[in-house]
Amino acid sequence: MTTKIDITLSETKKEKPESGQLEFGRVFTDHMFVMDYSPTKGWHDARITPYEPISLNPSSMVFHYGQTVFEGLKAYRTEDDKVLLFRPEKNMQRLNLSNERLCIPQIDGDFVIEALKQLVAIDKDWIPTAEGTSLYIRPFIIPTEYYLGVAPSKFYRFMIILSPVGSYYKEGIHPVKIFVENQYVRAVAGGTGKAKTGGNYASSLKAQEEASKKGYSQVLWLDGVEKKYIEEVGSMNIFFKINGEVVTPELNGSILEGVTRNSILKMLSHWGMVVSERKLSMEEVYQAYKQGLLEEAFGTGTAAVISPIGEFYYNDEKITINDGETGEISKKLYDTLTGIQKGTHEDIFNWVTEVK
Amino acid sequence: MTTKIDITLSETKKEKPESGQLEFGRVFTDHMFVMDYSPTKGWHDARITPYEPISLNPSSMVFHYGQTVFEGLKAYRTEDDKVLLFRPEKNMQRLNLSNERLCIPQIDGDFVIEALKQLVAIDKDWIPTAEGTSLYIRPFIIPTEYYLGVAPSKFYRFMIILSPVGSYYKEGIHPVKIFVENQYVRAVAGGTGKAKTGGNYASSLKAQEEASKKGYSQVLWLDGVEKKYIEEVGSMNIFFKINGEVVTPELNGSILEGVTRNSILKMLSHWGMVVSERKLSMEEVYQAYKQGLLEEAFGTGTAAVISPIGEFYYNDEKITINDGETGEISKKLYDTLTGIQKGTHEDIFNWVTEVK
Repeated sequence: MTTKIDITLSETKKEKPESGQLEFGRVFTDHMFVMDYSPTKGWHDARITPYEPISLNPSSMVFHYGQTVFEGLKAYRTEDDKVLLFRPEKNMQRLNLSNERLCIPQIDGDFVIEALKQLVAIDKDWIPTAEGTSLYIRPFIIPTEYYLGVAPSKFYRFMIILSPVGSYYKEGIHPVKIFVENQYVRAVAGGTGKAKTGGNYASSLKAQEEASKKGYSQVLWLDGVEKKYIEEVGSMNIFFKINGEVVTPELNGSILEGVTRNSILKMLSHWGMVVSERKLSMEEVYQAYKQGLLEEAFGTGTAAVISPIGEFYYNDEKITINDGETGEISKKLYDTLTGIQKGTHEDIFNWVTEVK
Repeated sequence: MTTKIDITLSETKKEKPESGQLEFGRVFTDHMFVMDYSPTKGWHDARITPYEPISLNPSSMVFHYGQTVFEGLKAYRTEDDKVLLFRPEKNMQRLNLSNERLCIPQIDGDFVIEALKQLVAIDKDWIPTAEGTSLYIRPFIIPTEYYLGVAPSKFYRFMIILSPVGSYYKEGIHPVKIFVENQYVRAVAGGTGKAKTGGNYASSLKAQEEASKKGYSQVLWLDGVEKKYIEEVGSMNIFFKINGEVVTPELNGSILEGVTRNSILKMLSHWGMVVSERKLSMEEVYQAYKQGLLEEAFGTGTAAVISPIGEFYYNDEKITINDGETGEISKKLYDTLTGIQKGTHEDIFNWVTEVK
């Protein structure tokens, strides 16, 4: 296992974008972290280099068989100029779960967090400070063997790139409209649903495109077997508040184990709320709506943090939630979570790690 | 739509491998075909260039979200030195079906076949002639936009690369042993099973790796809903001969619509055999075996052509077929199909296209 990180700093610095005009994932910083894997050396040649293109032969497996995994986390700059990371060890655990499912060698999470901290420290000036902005961190692994047989690659590249970002959705913290998908399926038990791998996202594009044409931001995925139970929404986990109970679908192998999801469950329990992780059918949500018991709904994820849901389109009917406004719990969770992440709220769960 | 193909020939020629020692997909020819897509220009800048690396920023979507499609077909050299392609128009039709599912712009199949013929003609000397060898042709499309949002890419690259190949399996035409998979799932209705996209192959690796450790070459996939009905085997379609009837699973949206599968159905019907495309459970196959009615089984695909199956491992039991030997129909299909492909059998179905 590699322990030394070579550092080559960029001779030129790119112009930084205006903090107030940031989109998601369009602009990248001056440096990146790279390491390579081979069967004989394991992970080796760890280095921080200028942000630069990857050059691979067209027969490289990454262009053919989708054996990729990735993670997403964020760095925040506090008012007193500290740099904070949020639960990076959870992302490393999940990356190794994804690796295991995709036949990719395990990484040393502690080492990668150290590399990530060095990289973020070098590009610290890129961390935006405007409300709703942060530095998005994208670790990812690609297969690099030059071979067209269908088999796990023998060679890999691990990289971390950084992007100063604004809100993931153009709606920002305003409620989004969601289309309940009844034709396309994202994942099924025995598949790759709980891994952060490219194919899960590729297979979601068609449904998202069709929903978008109908005026909906994202789709709500139902289970692949009965198309009855709620799984997740777009690329987020989902929560409902029904008659005082906060419910999110249980982890069943086809749902992503979100770091934000996990954090919200802990926060809600800490506040003494009734919280359940269980099977939840769309019909149950619909009946709750009919009885006036559907109080709130929101998506959760690193990119969007908390994304309140104002409307579902389900079986040719519009389900409006909380008059299309952001609910009380959604707001409180957003404020508390971003407060902990930005260092303005006390870190009572010990979730935050400082980059020195 | 592009109609002109720029040609830049390589100044150096690589050494060609020995025809008798070819593996699958390890060696590539001197040239490749490339064209690019942008929203304003459509597919443009079609060119044949020396085989060379692709250079893309690390934020390129291909490294993150798996929005890739590909095809596989073969060119053969006849005894009188003609170069033949087998049903390339079927591959172009399927490529556009895959494009449609993955939100990738449609290609002009006729133009791509023309490009492919020019490319194969330029690298004609790479086509091997030994028994069981051919020139494998790999068209593929990758998303090239520099963006981390989950959405269809706005930019793409289409490429064709060529590889002189031997047998796909080390067993060659000898029967393979197959593990009936009861834990992992390849695809489900509403997913991407019928598209040739990277994620389908990435999700198959884990099961294949575990089967391989138990001594089995490939896995047999069952349906994702009931894990009961037969779908396909490894990266091939599958056929059984049961009590005189040749059966293959019907196209249900989660099975790949194989060109070889389609050709075999036409050949068997032409020979007057009883052929069915229908739902087929593993239990039905098992019961046929118990009653001594399971006569043959074989996989079909461009890479392997016909791959006879000598044994299944199913529910802790070994099912041996035809004493582990290549069956009569498998052999006849292999001989006839490769005969048509190599120009030694009459092309009664008009499947073969000559590269001038």
